[in-house]
Amino acid sequence: MDQSAAHEALRGKGRAEMREILGAEYTEARDRSTNPFNAAVRALSEEMAYATLWTRPGLDRKQRSLITLAMICALNHPHELRIHLVAALNNGCTAEEISEVFTHAVAYCGFPAAIDALRLAEQVLKEQGALPA
Amino acid sequence: MDQSAAHEALRGKGRAEMREILGAEYTEARDRSTNPFNAAVRALSEEMAYATLWTRPGLDRKQRSLITLAMICALNHPHELRIHLVAALNNGCTAEEISEVFTHAVAYCGFPAAIDALRLAEQVLKEQGALPA
Amino acid sequence: MDQSAAHEALRGKGRAEMREILGAEYTEARDRSTNPFNAAVRALSEEMAYATLWTRPGLDRKQRSLITLAMICALNHPHELRIHLVAALNNGCTAEEISEVFTHAVAYCGFPAAIDALRLAEQVLKEQGALPA
Amino acid sequence: MDQSAAHEALRGKGRAEMREILGAEYTEARDRSTNPFNAAVRALSEEMAYATLWTRPGLDRKQRSLITLAMICALNHPHELRIHLVAALNNGCTAEEISEVFTHAVAYCGFPAAIDALRLAEQVLKEQGALPA
Amino acid sequence: MDQSAAHEALRGKGRAEMREILGAEYTEARDRSTNPFNAAVRALSEEMAYATLWTRPGLDRKQRSLITLAMICALNHPHELRIHLVAALNNGCTAEEISEVFTHAVAYCGFPAAIDALRLAEQVLKEQGALPA
Amino acid sequence: MDQSAAHEALRGKGRAEMREILGAEYTEARDRSTNPFNAAVRALSEEMAYATLWTRPGLDRKQRSLITLAMICALNHPHELRIHLVAALNNGCTAEEISEVFTHAVAYCGFPAAIDALRLAEQVLKEQGALPA
Repeated sequence: MDQSAAHEALRGKGRAEMREILGAEYTEARDRSTNPFNAAVRALSEEMAYATLWTRPGLDRKQRSLITLAMICALNHPHELRIHLVAALNNGCTAEEISEVFTHAVAYCGFPAAIDALRLAEQVLKEQGALPA
Repeated sequence: MDQSAAHEALRGKGRAEMREILGAEYTEARDRSTNPFNAAVRALSEEMAYATLWTRPGLDRKQRSLITLAMICALNHPHELRIHLVAALNNGCTAEEISEVFTHAVAYCGFPAAIDALRLAEQVLKEQGALPA
Repeated sequence: MDQSAAHEALRGKGRAEMREILGAEYTEARDRSTNPFNAAVRALSEEMAYATLWTRPGLDRKQRSLITLAMICALNHPHELRIHLVAALNNGCTAEEISEVFTHAVAYCGFPAAIDALRLAEQVLKEQGALPA
Repeated sequence: MDQSAAHEALRGKGRAEMREILGAEYTEARDRSTNPFNAAVRALSEEMAYATLWTRPGLDRKQRSLITLAMICALNHPHELRIHLVAALNNGCTAEEISEVFTHAVAYCGFPAAIDALRLAEQVLKEQGALPA
Repeated sequence: MDQSAAHEALRGKGRAEMREILGAEYTEARDRSTNPFNAAVRALSEEMAYATLWTRPGLDRKQRSLITLAMICALNHPHELRIHLVAALNNGCTAEEISEVFTHAVAYCGFPAAIDALRLAEQVLKEQGALPA
Repeated sequence: MDQSAAHEALRGKGRAEMREILGAEYTEARDRSTNPFNAAVRALSEEMAYATLWTRPGLDRKQRSLITLAMICALNHPHELRIHLVAALNNGCTAEEISEVFTHAVAYCGFPAAIDALRLAEQVLKEQGALPA
């Protein structure tokens, strides 16, 4: 069986999932900036993260958003945290739940990681209308 | 209220919470090994992690277990992961949900962190009777 | 005994400690931006970090500042490092001592972490008048 | 192509690649311990790491081994480092090159990460006959 | 034998190496901003990283650039990554090879680290004329 | 001075410093296990960590031990932490001070890192006779 057909099948599924989670506007802007330098990582993200992981049973999208925020807080990657904060709102997480993830993080990741994540979350949730500006 | 009364009040609450989450046997063994060298961290754990964070509204115990496993996987601390795997089972997480947290971690923490956590989880869940030995 | 009275007692002590270490201006600006989304982490910081840890015997404030800078350098959190650089100056650390912490960090954290921390420290110390502009 | 056919196609390719890099003995022992708890991560590893990344042009297998060792040294995962040390030998890396990766790591990751990786590498390379016992 | 003569001998060698790898313009701008606060780390970088590690046999400069990028991606230090992206181009790495390092990083460091590094690399390579603007 | 004379001068100084900090027994056992695979990292440790950093003015040996413990706790390297716990005792740190470093770490590194370091420290200090067995 043909490898590139396999990759294409997964990409199509992943792009549909990504569009539901991150929105059409995000997905289209992302497509416009895809180029040979970044195309492989983006295809992997579609095939692996969105087609293969986010669609699995066992945890629903909202639970996956909560653990994704928890992991990225621990890993200290603000740019990706921003994207997954938008995804979390789209997946049904409330402002209170998001605040609780990072408050809980104090015990396991320490204050610097928790405070950095919470400050960014406050900013993103205000931009998204999920907190009063 | 003076400071030491405040600390005592929180410790009492935290110890009750910890006993529910980690079991009487764990709590009693822990108490037997408490000494002046480690007492301050243990009191902090009772007052801060268990009394103050695990009892907050906004996320239930099971959700807190899932994000705790996600964070400790990202942070790479197997000894603490072991303890929180037992807590996760006591808080109602299933073997499938625990497997899914670490499977999802592949995308955000990478394979080494995900595989290390999953291998330890398989061992702990077998010890706890949550997976066939 | 009442949990909220216990939390209040610790918060009061922590806020006094924080004001001594970070200054009245910082503390008041922080209070003006406290809201329901970030209040729990801030209360925890007052109760746990400032009331409970920074006031402990065994290490003085200056020693605690040196190890705090060392940890945050290793953890790679520039926003929190900035706050604790100001605290270090208020706690009596000299520019030479701060430079030495991050120079020593080369051996244990590697050049990228040491250089990032040192560059931020140079900027903050100039802003604070602790180095010639 | 439907999703499960796509996954199967990639798995087949990844398993062949993994067998070349890690050997038949490793692959068969791994298969014997695959179970429902760990199967999803293992399939992902076959489909994503081995079928999709290790087969890409642009860097050859030996170069991929060197950067994989560099990353896992920085990430501090000894169990996975052990596996990728065996892979590095199979991919044509010499003992001297492996020693150089971790010696170079002193500057970027610091001594603790470099020394831990080098000590494990010495042990694995002796087991594999790539260094005198 | 005199310690300061030893340090001077290594510094001279390291400065020559650094100038070849990072260019005269970078080296001169760096010298103009050297002051008593940052001088020790800079001297260490010259003596240890450039004189002692980058000149070692066993791996050539291009291979050292690839593993340096791999480590700094894993360690999450964008400011130092920027400097070593320029060094990588000067050491003969192509845009395709740099893209492959960070694409490969998806499997070991996870998407957030890989995407952050790739996005910065795209920007730096455009500035350097190694990718179309 | 030629390069190899410079390295030899620094190594001699570093080995003397290391012997004072870690003891003759440790140093001699280390020498017996030095071989071509690990020699370069060990020479770097002598020339760079011990000759160049530990002998600098600005912080005394005891202060350097406290910040070294703080950094290695944050970086999560138990094997190196063990060595630097012995060094800390030799440099005049008390059991109480060592306990305080890791207690303080709860706020910045989180409980898992602090508890792991404290547990190892308790074991090492008992072995060294600095805590009752």
